[in-house]
Amino acid sequence: MAVPIILIVALIAGIISIGMALYFRYLVLKEDPGNERMQEVAGYIEEGAKTYIKIQYKILGIFVAALFLVIIFALPSQINPGALNWEQAIAYLIGAVGSMLAGWLGMYVGVKANTRAAQGCTISTKKGFDIAFFGGAVMGLAVVGVALIGVSIIYWIFQTPIVVLGFSFGASSIALFMKCGGGIFTKTADVGADLVGKAEYDLPEDDPRNPATIADNVGDNVGDIAGMGSDLFDSYVASIVAAMMLAAAFSIGIVVFPFGNITLTEEGIARLIITPLILCAVGLMASLIGIYLIKLKGSDEPGKALNTGTYLATVVYFGLSALFTFLLSIGLVAEEIGLLWRIWGTSAIGLIAGIILGFTSDYFTRDDKKPTRNIANAAKEGHAVVILSGFSYGLISVVPPALGVILAMAVAFWLAGVFGVAMAAVGMLSIVGTIVSNDAYGPIVDNARGIAEQGDLGEDVIRTADRLDSAGNTAKAITKGFAIGAANLTVLALLFSFTEEAGIILTGINLLDINVLIGAFIGVVVPALFSALLILAVQRNAAKMVDEIRRQFEENPKILTGEEAADFSKTIDIATKGSLRELILPSIISIVIPITVGILFGVAALGAFLAGAILSGFVFAVMMSNSGGAWDNAKKWIEDGNLGGKGTEIHKASITGDTVGDPFKDTAGPSINTLLVVMSLTASIFMGLLLLPIFNLGAGLLLL
Amino acid sequence: MAVPIILIVALIAGIISIGMALYFRYLVLKEDPGNERMQEVAGYIEEGAKTYIKIQYKILGIFVAALFLVIIFALPSQINPGALNWEQAIAYLIGAVGSMLAGWLGMYVGVKANTRAAQGCTISTKKGFDIAFFGGAVMGLAVVGVALIGVSIIYWIFQTPIVVLGFSFGASSIALFMKCGGGIFTKTADVGADLVGKAEYDLPEDDPRNPATIADNVGDNVGDIAGMGSDLFDSYVASIVAAMMLAAAFSIGIVVFPFGNITLTEEGIARLIITPLILCAVGLMASLIGIYLIKLKGSDEPGKALNTGTYLATVVYFGLSALFTFLLSIGLVAEEIGLLWRIWGTSAIGLIAGIILGFTSDYFTRDDKKPTRNIANAAKEGHAVVILSGFSYGLISVVPPALGVILAMAVAFWLAGVFGVAMAAVGMLSIVGTIVSNDAYGPIVDNARGIAEQGDLGEDVIRTADRLDSAGNTAKAITKGFAIGAANLTVLALLFSFTEEAGIILTGINLLDINVLIGAFIGVVVPALFSALLILAVQRNAAKMVDEIRRQFEENPKILTGEEAADFSKTIDIATKGSLRELILPSIISIVIPITVGILFGVAALGAFLAGAILSGFVFAVMMSNSGGAWDNAKKWIEDGNLGGKGTEIHKASITGDTVGDPFKDTAGPSINTLLVVMSLTASIFMGLLLLPIFNLGAGLLLL
Repeated sequence: MAVPIILIVALIAGIISIGMALYFRYLVLKEDPGNERMQEVAGYIEEGAKTYIKIQYKILGIFVAALFLVIIFALPSQINPGALNWEQAIAYLIGAVGSMLAGWLGMYVGVKANTRAAQGCTISTKKGFDIAFFGGAVMGLAVVGVALIGVSIIYWIFQTPIVVLGFSFGASSIALFMKCGGGIFTKTADVGADLVGKAEYDLPEDDPRNPATIADNVGDNVGDIAGMGSDLFDSYVASIVAAMMLAAAFSIGIVVFPFGNITLTEEGIARLIITPLILCAVGLMASLIGIYLIKLKGSDEPGKALNTGTYLATVVYFGLSALFTFLLSIGLVAEEIGLLWRIWGTSAIGLIAGIILGFTSDYFTRDDKKPTRNIANAAKEGHAVVILSGFSYGLISVVPPALGVILAMAVAFWLAGVFGVAMAAVGMLSIVGTIVSNDAYGPIVDNARGIAEQGDLGEDVIRTADRLDSAGNTAKAITKGFAIGAANLTVLALLFSFTEEAGIILTGINLLDINVLIGAFIGVVVPALFSALLILAVQRNAAKMVDEIRRQFEENPKILTGEEAADFSKTIDIATKGSLRELILPSIISIVIPITVGILFGVAALGAFLAGAILSGFVFAVMMSNSGGAWDNAKKWIEDGNLGGKGTEIHKASITGDTVGDPFKDTAGPSINTLLVVMSLTASIFMGLLLLPIFNLGAGLLLL
Repeated sequence: MAVPIILIVALIAGIISIGMALYFRYLVLKEDPGNERMQEVAGYIEEGAKTYIKIQYKILGIFVAALFLVIIFALPSQINPGALNWEQAIAYLIGAVGSMLAGWLGMYVGVKANTRAAQGCTISTKKGFDIAFFGGAVMGLAVVGVALIGVSIIYWIFQTPIVVLGFSFGASSIALFMKCGGGIFTKTADVGADLVGKAEYDLPEDDPRNPATIADNVGDNVGDIAGMGSDLFDSYVASIVAAMMLAAAFSIGIVVFPFGNITLTEEGIARLIITPLILCAVGLMASLIGIYLIKLKGSDEPGKALNTGTYLATVVYFGLSALFTFLLSIGLVAEEIGLLWRIWGTSAIGLIAGIILGFTSDYFTRDDKKPTRNIANAAKEGHAVVILSGFSYGLISVVPPALGVILAMAVAFWLAGVFGVAMAAVGMLSIVGTIVSNDAYGPIVDNARGIAEQGDLGEDVIRTADRLDSAGNTAKAITKGFAIGAANLTVLALLFSFTEEAGIILTGINLLDINVLIGAFIGVVVPALFSALLILAVQRNAAKMVDEIRRQFEENPKILTGEEAADFSKTIDIATKGSLRELILPSIISIVIPITVGILFGVAALGAFLAGAILSGFVFAVMMSNSGGAWDNAKKWIEDGNLGGKGTEIHKASITGDTVGDPFKDTAGPSINTLLVVMSLTASIFMGLLLLPIFNLGAGLLLL
């Protein structure tokens, strides 16, 4: 099947994206990095982040090389039966390296942008905002660029999405490490710094005497820039691949859709396969236009500016995607054209659903709305009640986004079957450039605020930086809701493409089959276990951090007086090594359990396993993200002087909520997305193995 | 199909059970109720419990009458198409009234036994133990007796399990109110009493000056005797009905089982239908023998005595059930005899699994095992870390029982198909008489300890009562694990009988059907929402209780000096009315959501909804029960003088864990069982409606 030439649009868009990322990098780097003290602090952060990334990448190198060998030698090729599986293996390598490159570029600029944004705040809000925003946009554009270029070229060369699956698996396995590792790192440092520095020695936040301060700042970068970026990169590529695989499964001739039958031509199918790439290219253009308009217009209200960018990108997407749907439809038969327009509809619905999900999670975590306000008031009755309240609202907050995803899924299915569901995921993720940019903006301004404080830039500048920071927090809440919804739809699409690949899309996944029921049962339990392991990892690591901070203060009293600098490298080392060590068990789970379920109970049970994990993972991810966010904001609202303000028993109770929420919202909750994608892709990649005659006895090894 | 005469065994066993319950009641009542002060306190508790039950039953009367009318008039009869559905309606009424009667009898003796057990402790440990144990056994035997008599008679008269389903639904709808209502009541009083009495006025536990003390004691009885009793009654009857329905669905001639085909005769099927009842009768005999042997042997180690009773009942069950399997098989053909022995195997496996589950939950909540010890140590790092640690271990504790249920289900299925799974649930619940007796023993000795303290019986007697109490806590942990496992297997069996009834056991529940996927999605979310609503209900109610206690202390200072008695009726009133009001939303959810899902998306989606709810409900129920239990015991371990003991910051942090755990383990967690059974039975009972032509369009109203 020839690749339609219009695919060049995706490739060019990807190249432009990388070009713009490098241009924004240039714009950021040419700014004034501020006074000596600021540069010193920023230097520590940069060094810490680079140390982490270097160690992380070294370990990843071994891991990637090992999996590369497994894919090439252990997995039967699904393209040339009997041959070595080198196509998927190479694609895997490119995906992994691409993800690492994008993460590196984003982080590199992020740690340069913080001090420059702080300095920018001395000029104007807009100046500070622009620097931070461009700094964040580098990550967003790098992610989209690498994804579009990688997928386009691999598909062009190999002409089958099965190989692109390897690319996606590469991106995903890196994301698992970056997201979980970053999440453990950032909370180890944060919790450790708070427990000793704030509680025992009464040091303020970001105090340079606290040995874990720099580690905390590094954590913001590795968790929220590299981590969230690789997470969305992962979902983005996976949604594209799932849709491509489902399109490639269409057969020439009559194809059954929920709304009726359609006759597809070879050219029609070829166009459908690349439609997700084209629509993502359109989403990138929409994101760039949004970014450009924000800059042009300027704004003294950073929060509004970020949201305006999202709205603009959305509106532009609707128009531009209609144009490209028209271009894609040229020369096709009428029925195919109708289908293309239905697909345009599914992508639009996905995008709208994503934005609604983002704002739902914003509602549940805003301090001027009922849930967070009630949680703050619960602090009046003590530590326990604040926990019960936040936990309950977190659980309740699952209902609206669940209904949102269900509705989007149902309408998309009604419009274009399971392919429609996959395209809704693609649509939701199409403006991921904007989403990642807004998200990466957060840690930059968060760091900028700390640097402004340590660089003695004065009250006014700090207040400006504070405003930028608070906009970053809102953006982060929205991004998280968006990311969970997008991952959820993506893994549902992957589930369909998996069943298509396994040849069970017709026979179905029957819950009354005992193997299938067992698969679903195991699937529902896994996200719970995974979350628990990550939370315990943070707890264990933070305890080590606490010991180290105490040791430094005790052995060298000059640190507390400010005469000598604390040993930042030691705390960074603990956070780094600890987070990587604690990653081992969760990553084994995410790869070994799906394969084991497939071998023992068969591919249908593996499908049910994925479905169970997707649904229960959604509940845990939303609950943890939202209760964590609400606890955080309830605490901040109290610190703003409400209910007695700082230092009261009420405030202390709210801090307990915030501390519980830290690993909920920044470690376990968001890592579940990546877990789900990795497990889904593992199932697809190892399909060749699972379908080997020895395992393919109808219901796996355990014939029940 | 004629009813085999051997069914008389179940009826006789039921009558013996009630007789023994009344005999034990006599044994308890003839004991010395202790001194005047003790009788006074016990009188308050008795009065409070009766007040609660009266108001509860009044409301239940209206509810039962309304549902009675719905069943008779709105639901199409599944026995005589076109006729009024009076058979199921009457069975429903009997089930509801039977459940209420059993609850009343158990509660009535429970509140009489407490002061007598306290007085018994002045004579010997054994005396105190015997009184409390017989008091608890009344509830256990009443539950089993009412169930066996009710099911046997109804089946004898109507000769179809469809009518027995009405009985089960009656029992279940009462259980929902008793369990959730009792759970909210007990924690409203407990949390309220602690927050003001202990924290603000520094009163000790069970202090008579605290206006909520009596309400707290009442709560133990309504939550742990009536609530847990009705919960297990509910599961017990439901497991019997599910197995009967699956047996009744066998057709004469060749029937396909996982291990091969079997030819069944009419007589064979008739015997299979009553097999669950016979095995439950056997379980009852085994329980009675266990109880008798415990009494005969006597023991100064109450904890060991309770466990010995459970082991004895298990061993006796294996032997006796083999004998009755032999009796059941007389006159059948060889293939049927083989099947009966396979079924004996499934029931044995179910029972063993139940006991293993009980001891697993014991492991995760014992203060001498790693999880609880780690949680206690986490208290050194403050309130937040104790919460994170307990929550994580709670999640991890889901894995072993999940594997246990999966294994039991898989082996049972391999032995006898879905009927085997149902019979494993029956086997697990066969010794429910022992389980409920052990559980109801707990609140009696808990109350006895308080009464001994208030009746000034001296240090030695209080220490004896303490030992009885601590055995009660262990028994409670085991019971909870057992109850969750049993409910889980039961609802899985109900799921199969539901699909059999809906005629989709052959077409299956295909997760790739979008309606089914949506059903599963909604199902997974419901237990989370339900838990959150119950926790918030406790929080809201406890806040009212706090206000009332403060009001009494402020308006009448003589309460604190002990000159005047607090107004107990007021606090009991708050707990009673509040718990009933807060029940409305959760009970609507449990009945309305399944019907809505069935109407909108069809019966297959309803099946997936149930499956999703069962699996996610299992995760939430186990997590909440075990983390709650572990927090409780971590606190007690610290109060025993470890890590600095009472009054330290570490102790305070552990109290936070305990308070969070209270509604987890005593309200939300255990209520999920009942939710699942009610939803499953609602689906089955309303099947006639859902299969009406207007809804039965293949996939419900929303044709996707």
